[in-house]
Amino acid sequence: MADVRDYIRTIPDFPHEGILFRDVTTLFGDARGFRMAVDQLLHPFIGTRIDRVAGLEARGFILGGAVAHQLSVGFVPVRKKGKLPGETIEEAYQLEYGTAVLEAHVDAVQPGERVLIVDDLLATGGTAEAGISLVERLGGEVAGCAFVVDLPDLGGRRRLEALGVTVHALTAYEGA
Amino acid sequence: MADVRDYIRTIPDFPHEGILFRDVTTLFGDARGFRMAVDQLLHPFIGTRIDRVAGLEARGFILGGAVAHQLSVGFVPVRKKGKLPGETIEEAYQLEYGTAVLEAHVDAVQPGERVLIVDDLLATGGTAEAGISLVERLGGEVAGCAFVVDLPDLGGRRRLEALGVTVHALTAYEGA
Repeated sequence: MADVRDYIRTIPDFPHEGILFRDVTTLFGDARGFRMAVDQLLHPFIGTRIDRVAGLEARGFILGGAVAHQLSVGFVPVRKKGKLPGETIEEAYQLEYGTAVLEAHVDAVQPGERVLIVDDLLATGGTAEAGISLVERLGGEVAGCAFVVDLPDLGGRRRLEALGVTVHALTAYEGA
Repeated sequence: MADVRDYIRTIPDFPHEGILFRDVTTLFGDARGFRMAVDQLLHPFIGTRIDRVAGLEARGFILGGAVAHQLSVGFVPVRKKGKLPGETIEEAYQLEYGTAVLEAHVDAVQPGERVLIVDDLLATGGTAEAGISLVERLGGEVAGCAFVVDLPDLGGRRRLEALGVTVHALTAYEGA
């Protein structure tokens, strides 16, 4: 049985020296790998209600588009500041140096809807936490956060679980 | 019968004054609208061979992820310069002011593969033409370019068709 890990490529020193970049484009680029990733992302959520899928810009758009399609639900883009044309709410999050801001349209989630948040990689959990906050401020309930890759040493899983959110990742790389 | 157009929202003066921005997030956000868009994008290509779907950053990732999933093929990201971690080829294209560069991984398309290029909107066709060029330089054959929205007054369709490429759009807005 193939594993998503077989399709993930590691590229050293991207985007900075000393970083081992876990590249999911080789997973998404393979017909079998891409479908496997989408299927496995949804396994823990089978039988639960999911009303929309939110994807975090930009790799979370690829995966989130496919997951929303598989579930036959709508897709909600969570974007970097200034990219969404309608009225938005925003949430700042910490980067390695400084902060950045994510936005969602004010009408992207309806009160009471259950939203699955999707991204390729869980590192410190800062962007996912901003995504959770946006969904909750719109009145949605976070059904869970699903990632392809978890880097557990960076603490993202602990941070999101401390918020009471279900975290699912297909594979983990230690020592990252 | 509902039309994708019923789900597209027009936002005036985004990103600049005088622009009528055709916002597909309301289409993608609706379960019925999103599935309708994916289905209709593929209608002209039913029965043709498509080996991969290439999506243009960033809204083309949402649609492209869903289309690749529907076809059970791999997804190829065509990204703005500096975002892809592996070895890339690049192609410059014209913006309103100045130029920008798109990239694809050198191993994202195999020679002889038929690639469907997907994006939300066809305006001048500059980004799509850069995407076509990247696919062809990698040895791929462009199966077609599929968009949700065409702005025919900006000449993109003529430009791409002049390259011998099949262009498909779900709806057109004149006078844009």
